[in-house]
Amino acid sequence: MNKENNTTNKNKENGSEKNLIEKRINESIAKHNWPIQLKIALACRKLASEEHAQTLAGHVTVRAENNTFWVNQLMVGFGNTSQSTVIRVNEDLEVVEGNGIANPGMRFHLWVYKVRPDINSIVHTHPPFSSALAMTGKELAVAHMDVAMFYKDCAYLPEWPGVPLADEEGRIISKALGDNHSLLLASHGILTAGKNIETATVLAMQFERASRLQLLAESVGTIKPIKDEQAQEAHDFQLSDGVVKGNFNSWGSQLLREQPDTED
Amino acid sequence: MNKENNTTNKNKENGSEKNLIEKRINESIAKHNWPIQLKIALACRKLASEEHAQTLAGHVTVRAENNTFWVNQLMVGFGNTSQSTVIRVNEDLEVVEGNGIANPGMRFHLWVYKVRPDINSIVHTHPPFSSALAMTGKELAVAHMDVAMFYKDCAYLPEWPGVPLADEEGRIISKALGDNHSLLLASHGILTAGKNIETATVLAMQFERASRLQLLAESVGTIKPIKDEQAQEAHDFQLSDGVVKGNFNSWGSQLLREQPDTED
Amino acid sequence: MNKENNTTNKNKENGSEKNLIEKRINESIAKHNWPIQLKIALACRKLASEEHAQTLAGHVTVRAENNTFWVNQLMVGFGNTSQSTVIRVNEDLEVVEGNGIANPGMRFHLWVYKVRPDINSIVHTHPPFSSALAMTGKELAVAHMDVAMFYKDCAYLPEWPGVPLADEEGRIISKALGDNHSLLLASHGILTAGKNIETATVLAMQFERASRLQLLAESVGTIKPIKDEQAQEAHDFQLSDGVVKGNFNSWGSQLLREQPDTED
Amino acid sequence: MNKENNTTNKNKENGSEKNLIEKRINESIAKHNWPIQLKIALACRKLASEEHAQTLAGHVTVRAENNTFWVNQLMVGFGNTSQSTVIRVNEDLEVVEGNGIANPGMRFHLWVYKVRPDINSIVHTHPPFSSALAMTGKELAVAHMDVAMFYKDCAYLPEWPGVPLADEEGRIISKALGDNHSLLLASHGILTAGKNIETATVLAMQFERASRLQLLAESVGTIKPIKDEQAQEAHDFQLSDGVVKGNFNSWGSQLLREQPDTED
Repeated sequence: MNKENNTTNKNKENGSEKNLIEKRINESIAKHNWPIQLKIALACRKLASEEHAQTLAGHVTVRAENNTFWVNQLMVGFGNTSQSTVIRVNEDLEVVEGNGIANPGMRFHLWVYKVRPDINSIVHTHPPFSSALAMTGKELAVAHMDVAMFYKDCAYLPEWPGVPLADEEGRIISKALGDNHSLLLASHGILTAGKNIETATVLAMQFERASRLQLLAESVGTIKPIKDEQAQEAHDFQLSDGVVKGNFNSWGSQLLREQPDTED
Repeated sequence: MNKENNTTNKNKENGSEKNLIEKRINESIAKHNWPIQLKIALACRKLASEEHAQTLAGHVTVRAENNTFWVNQLMVGFGNTSQSTVIRVNEDLEVVEGNGIANPGMRFHLWVYKVRPDINSIVHTHPPFSSALAMTGKELAVAHMDVAMFYKDCAYLPEWPGVPLADEEGRIISKALGDNHSLLLASHGILTAGKNIETATVLAMQFERASRLQLLAESVGTIKPIKDEQAQEAHDFQLSDGVVKGNFNSWGSQLLREQPDTED
Repeated sequence: MNKENNTTNKNKENGSEKNLIEKRINESIAKHNWPIQLKIALACRKLASEEHAQTLAGHVTVRAENNTFWVNQLMVGFGNTSQSTVIRVNEDLEVVEGNGIANPGMRFHLWVYKVRPDINSIVHTHPPFSSALAMTGKELAVAHMDVAMFYKDCAYLPEWPGVPLADEEGRIISKALGDNHSLLLASHGILTAGKNIETATVLAMQFERASRLQLLAESVGTIKPIKDEQAQEAHDFQLSDGVVKGNFNSWGSQLLREQPDTED
Repeated sequence: MNKENNTTNKNKENGSEKNLIEKRINESIAKHNWPIQLKIALACRKLASEEHAQTLAGHVTVRAENNTFWVNQLMVGFGNTSQSTVIRVNEDLEVVEGNGIANPGMRFHLWVYKVRPDINSIVHTHPPFSSALAMTGKELAVAHMDVAMFYKDCAYLPEWPGVPLADEEGRIISKALGDNHSLLLASHGILTAGKNIETATVLAMQFERASRLQLLAESVGTIKPIKDEQAQEAHDFQLSDGVVKGNFNSWGSQLLREQPDTED
């Protein structure tokens, strides 16, 4: 898969083959032209399948035209979200497309979008392993190839400001995120942000996995750190378009087969 | 969502929007007019799906007219409960509507109903994480937004009185509950109580989740406490009608799609 | 439910109601007249659903006439076992009814049947939590109402004699079991034995649950013991016909609904 | 089941019966003549069902004629792999049968095939318990009968060389494997290798199980070792054709019933 920022030369020996593979990966990715509402529904269903949505808390948003934002509908729940239930709201959370209401908690997404023009999609959830980690006062430990996308790219908000319905929390959370892609919110949950919905969703899925790995490893010992050069390289690899969209498309295809009503 | 007891003023800036959202939430809630028997069946199936019903132990009751009570049927099991299997019994546990028998263990519910006129529904189960917590002699630790409904609102019965089939246990358990909504029963399980079945069910689901978070967090470290003001506010928010019924309705809709025979 | 050996008098106050309930429970139990092959298939599928059968290891046997024994078929696996695949073998493991072969590991069942005329069914599996416990050198800790059937009724074999295919292991295992209903086999798994298949199956299911509770509780602290009188009473209650058959029948009904091919 | 290298004589007493059982096991195995592409698809689906494939990382390969290799297709994902999506590639990873591309990470398989003529199939995955173990710096602990196939037969690579896309990692990994069947890769995952796909798949499934048992046991205490003679004997037994193919065929049959599209 593509590693645009790869500064080592170890793949040079397979240069032409690598170019061919990237070409084929890009062709494969290009074939998936799901509408954005369907992508949001697939993200919600995938997150629900891994315990990110045990309650109505949590939201998936995507930046749209004219300061509007796609978002899953509050009263429906991630596990019931289908294409037609996704709505578009303006900066006052008024619905401009579709029927239903947004979770007022998504207000803090708007603060992130305002200060981070590189971010076009945000996922916020409270999955169990990340929630347990968020209760301990520890930060996320990154020591496995699969979760290297969080290496030096995951911030921590150590004080919970309370139920995040107001603009105050938006200011706190957007400031805590800084220029990272991910944020662990003490006593609360996670926030992931990417240039597209595939990135934000894959980050959220892998954040929970990273928390689980950390809790499992620390329950029996200490964590052996990984080296900086490999970690940085793996970070860029894991966040590359080929890896991110490849994963999202594979999950989406399986979900459409198993839960075809997601397309309703 | 509505936060009737909210004493802070941080949401004032979004006051009119907040009113609109509450209105929409209430409209959404009002659309679900499931009969009480179906609500009990949905509660049983949801609890079964998260390991609250690995045996026939456990009961869901709802106060009805003339000192009678709706309850799931003993020999059926939570996972098999459907609308038509729910029965209504009097204070002597004699069946006055439907066919079948109640778990004699529900006798202690009657003691709670007697001393707590604010309570109209009770759930009692033995799910795994709460059961494991109940073996340690520890009380429930509340340090995450999602489980704030237990903040200063979860009692503890430190001595197990034995299999709870008699009136003696009713006296002990109702006294231990006091004016709380929830109770951890050492060496036994959990009891949750609410003004309606949605509240009692959401409390039971979240109690098990809270126990799981505590066990996960304590397996790798210590738990960082949350602050009193935010915890109290989140407590009221989590127990508000919008949150509780929103969650219950979302779960119920998903169950009816996945297990349509619940309506039989 | 019936508590025939109950030496306390606390239920006397509800005596006539208790008799009625027992009558109804017995009527409910009597309605399930599944053939023994179907019961074995249901036991196998239920055990498979909770990770008792991750490999072909494990067997469920039932004593039949003339020193023959019903058993699930080796090459099929618990998860694929249906009524018609169950076979009957003699003491030399020769098939006398049905087609297929028995796991030679079931030889040690025969040693138990020989010295325990009260036992008519045996389950042997290697589920994950019990297997992990069996790696630690610890015995099963009984400190929760739901697992009281193991109170002073679970033996421990501290040395693993190797893969149990020969008569030698039969002698060791039947001696270790003694007059208990259950046995933890170090570095190996569990054995449960009952007067009927319902008892042996419920014991196996609850053994794994007991191991899980113990591992969860000990991962965060120490286990608070339960008192002898309540534990003994709960032991008898949990092993009573009403509780055991009620659970088995409820699981079986759910399985037949979800996996109707079990009846094939 | 057959234990060709069994040096003890304890089964002699049941010699003729044992021969009959082996004959029947071999007859049962012989009945499953699934094409190799279907076997790969079944392996992928089974591994996906136990969390070996949470991302597109991971590959299952089988040596074919003329230095070519069967492999699952990169962009499809284990959970979506069906018979017709499996491809055959040459040593330059060029596709010679079927459509699609191989994961460039499979390059290190080629290095193993080159130095290990006894190996005809390799599985590489990053399942959660093994990944957590791989974060701790510990080696796999073998102290249970079911995982004895790793007894003195599981190597450890203590330094992660980075994302394994190049030949460099092939040299490191094939050297680390040595003459073992299995390898734990620090900060990364697992590699298992066998004379056929059944062996490599069963090893991968049981590796994750072994890691889980180890983490569970070590979370509450220390691990009691098993004795050398029994462990060696169980090692050979667990890797015998009867056990390995029996397990694979049973899993495969269940998968074909539950996910018939695997045959597409």
